[in-house]
Amino acid sequence: MQNAQQLYTEYVTIMQKAADLNYAAAVLGWDQETYMPPKGADYRGRQLATLATQAHEILTSDPFGKIVHQLAGMDGLDDTQSANIRLSVEDYERNKKLPPAFVEELSRLTSESFNAWIASRRQNDFSVFLPLLTKMIALKRKQADLYGYKAHPYDALLDEYEKGATIAMLDPVFKGISEQLPILLDKIKAAPQVSNDCFHRHFPKQQQWDFSIDVLKGMGFDLEAGRQDYSEHPFTTSFAPADVRLTTRVDENNYASLLWSCIHEGGHGLYEQGLPGEQYGLPLGAAASLGIHESQSRFWENCIGRSLGYWKHYYPILQKYFPTQLSDITVEDFFKAANRIEPSFIRTEADELTYHFHVMIRYELEKALIQGSLNPKDLREQWNAHYNKYLGITPKDDKTGVLQDVHWSHGMFGYFPTYSLGSFYASQFFGQVQKDIPGLHEKIQKGELQPILQWLRNKVHQYGRRYTSEELCERITGTKLDPQFFIQYASKKYSQIYGISL
Amino acid sequence: MQNAQQLYTEYVTIMQKAADLNYAAAVLGWDQETYMPPKGADYRGRQLATLATQAHEILTSDPFGKIVHQLAGMDGLDDTQSANIRLSVEDYERNKKLPPAFVEELSRLTSESFNAWIASRRQNDFSVFLPLLTKMIALKRKQADLYGYKAHPYDALLDEYEKGATIAMLDPVFKGISEQLPILLDKIKAAPQVSNDCFHRHFPKQQQWDFSIDVLKGMGFDLEAGRQDYSEHPFTTSFAPADVRLTTRVDENNYASLLWSCIHEGGHGLYEQGLPGEQYGLPLGAAASLGIHESQSRFWENCIGRSLGYWKHYYPILQKYFPTQLSDITVEDFFKAANRIEPSFIRTEADELTYHFHVMIRYELEKALIQGSLNPKDLREQWNAHYNKYLGITPKDDKTGVLQDVHWSHGMFGYFPTYSLGSFYASQFFGQVQKDIPGLHEKIQKGELQPILQWLRNKVHQYGRRYTSEELCERITGTKLDPQFFIQYASKKYSQIYGISL
Repeated sequence: MQNAQQLYTEYVTIMQKAADLNYAAAVLGWDQETYMPPKGADYRGRQLATLATQAHEILTSDPFGKIVHQLAGMDGLDDTQSANIRLSVEDYERNKKLPPAFVEELSRLTSESFNAWIASRRQNDFSVFLPLLTKMIALKRKQADLYGYKAHPYDALLDEYEKGATIAMLDPVFKGISEQLPILLDKIKAAPQVSNDCFHRHFPKQQQWDFSIDVLKGMGFDLEAGRQDYSEHPFTTSFAPADVRLTTRVDENNYASLLWSCIHEGGHGLYEQGLPGEQYGLPLGAAASLGIHESQSRFWENCIGRSLGYWKHYYPILQKYFPTQLSDITVEDFFKAANRIEPSFIRTEADELTYHFHVMIRYELEKALIQGSLNPKDLREQWNAHYNKYLGITPKDDKTGVLQDVHWSHGMFGYFPTYSLGSFYASQFFGQVQKDIPGLHEKIQKGELQPILQWLRNKVHQYGRRYTSEELCERITGTKLDPQFFIQYASKKYSQIYGISL
Repeated sequence: MQNAQQLYTEYVTIMQKAADLNYAAAVLGWDQETYMPPKGADYRGRQLATLATQAHEILTSDPFGKIVHQLAGMDGLDDTQSANIRLSVEDYERNKKLPPAFVEELSRLTSESFNAWIASRRQNDFSVFLPLLTKMIALKRKQADLYGYKAHPYDALLDEYEKGATIAMLDPVFKGISEQLPILLDKIKAAPQVSNDCFHRHFPKQQQWDFSIDVLKGMGFDLEAGRQDYSEHPFTTSFAPADVRLTTRVDENNYASLLWSCIHEGGHGLYEQGLPGEQYGLPLGAAASLGIHESQSRFWENCIGRSLGYWKHYYPILQKYFPTQLSDITVEDFFKAANRIEPSFIRTEADELTYHFHVMIRYELEKALIQGSLNPKDLREQWNAHYNKYLGITPKDDKTGVLQDVHWSHGMFGYFPTYSLGSFYASQFFGQVQKDIPGLHEKIQKGELQPILQWLRNKVHQYGRRYTSEELCERITGTKLDPQFFIQYASKKYSQIYGISL
């Protein structure tokens, strides 16, 4: 009979083989968004499907299931090994709940539905997407049934993106936000608006790029173990902790477009580079959850990258790149411009505060769609009604309204809440880092960001999936996720910017 | 019982699944040479190995073997289908001859041997590479035994790159060349040398690139189904006929470096784009052989891209990019510079004529190494002696001598001859195309290259692997490969350039 270590080695071999296939798919996906010529799309689609299927087959095979279950019952594994096995048993059981025929149907429908969404956007008409969306929602409800759930089918879908997240946990979080944020926003609305004209001058592409590389280096992003490229929609992907790819976009007449997407993706990238390489392909080598991933990007983008201290160091460097464009703008002006609050239609371009209403709207609609209390054919009307209610604006058409996000066409229901969770975790971590690092703000003003990265490495990155989001949050800050940290952070910051008293 | 069409569909599904994995590996390989950050190398190595192993397992599995053999004995397939099955049976039987343990040993030794070659080059000392090379040669002899052969073990290795090629076929070809080419070269040597100074001026990178894109478009390379990037060593790779990647390199002080590598790789790329997409993953969707592939690149590079007619059209365009650099150079000067003949040490930088001595030297040495009549420890000495004999020059060190090519470290014995075969096929095809297309030279002078591409599409590209190199050559030109076509082509061209009488 094999001993635990021998069997564990077998387990690692299988896991890493599947990881090789999944990372290969990530390379193909990266290339698809960055360099692939247009006619390559069809073949790329089938190559990606084959890689995903092969990896899925490996990880749902009966022999693999036998190995992980056997290991789960054996002595002789260390802590790390036991944690990997515990998570792999969970993953295996979860994966097995979806029969191959269902996986195939979902994959096919996703492809059709994505194409319908593209066509729908082109025609700026939600009704083109509606039939496929209706099918997709039915299939996602079926998926929730296959996974199983206690309180609400939406919980089963949430769990895929944020383990342990449920409506019971999210409802109070969003309730807190939806009660308190409007108070702050009303005060901001009553105060004189700050100008962000300084972003809308002409900034040549190359200098924008060069400064963004300075920014990434300053954050500690290792450009020997990663790179930045252009794509239509910024994203981060990883082929190993030693090869992390960021993408950004550029608009010569709107510097904000590149700048914060660069810092945001840089935050994701630092997390990926900080995952333990020796756990390659294993649960402890992967990010804790989407919410924690987003906490890393939002931490850098908002808590650091939109702070006055950060720009006290970086603004003079930026001015050297753009001496004429920024000659009349002080660092305080620039800081304010970076934090201008204004309701808008498009989630990805929203400011740090109104952003959460975008997420909340989607969260409410998704719950109702999955529960069956909202008929998809009423979705456009409900979307617009919600925007009117929460943001006081009504989308002028479907492209800036219900058709703006790709997620539903990909079948990603339950994903949106992780965006807000990320911000809330980020604020809570930021509160803690200010206690843990003496003289933090002086360091930031001098451009010394290394201690921050070190803190994130120690507190978050090194653990991979060892702890759930909630466990991690409690270990780091001593308390569960509490949106009050975000409200306090926001109130302090924006009362300064808009000169309002609380 | 299944009918032939049902079983054939199963065969296609399996073949295309393996192709998806192999093409995915090609994407990873392309990225490795173009954009991958340095620290990504180790993980990339294992990802590539997994993809190769998975594809190999699929294509050597017993069930797959059963399917192809069953299909080979069935009625009810059309011509194309039968040709695919015939070739797949051959491939399967050939692949099965190598036991998994051997494949693994070869893969491991290749990796070690490549690292030793890198170290050896860095130290400029052949003796560092020698132990691994010795092992590699022993393993390649074992491989030849596993494949089996009639006359000579080297034949078994040649067959892997150029099906049907044997020493019995190659010896007379190279004998003809080695007897006749020196006569021409002696006359060239006696004539006044032509100047190629015009390449060694300062040519800014961006303009070089822009002109190279004009050149590729002019050849008919579809930039919606492919692209060009930079890499250290130019190469072409393909992920489907609709996604073909060329790479080139640039030297601001030597324009020749980019220019002909671009046309050369463009020739390879046109072949890949011309392969039938509906045969994706099947033998008839793949190139006929390495020799035929090289015939396409050499055809464009030498027969077209180094002709006076071609530059009569393109030189004025080039001059617009570089008005000052080329103001004193006539198109005739430029044409001559592009065809300067001069013995040199490095194969990849050799001119169109002396190139074949580089290949011949490697061919002679490889035969002796595989036969066992040359001890690897005497290889450096023999290398230098051969360079002295054939080219009248002696390498000053190992880097410009025996260590210059990567091939042996990769275990690629039998590959080099395909380079010369490519040139010889190209000349023979060029002879034919002049007969087949009325007014060809006038068309070339007007930049009308489309009829040439059409001819190559019809005569070569559309067939994939349906015919062997020899069959293809005979179908197109009415005769087997005959190096006299090359000698005649070269004599005519170079007597004009060097003003010599034959």
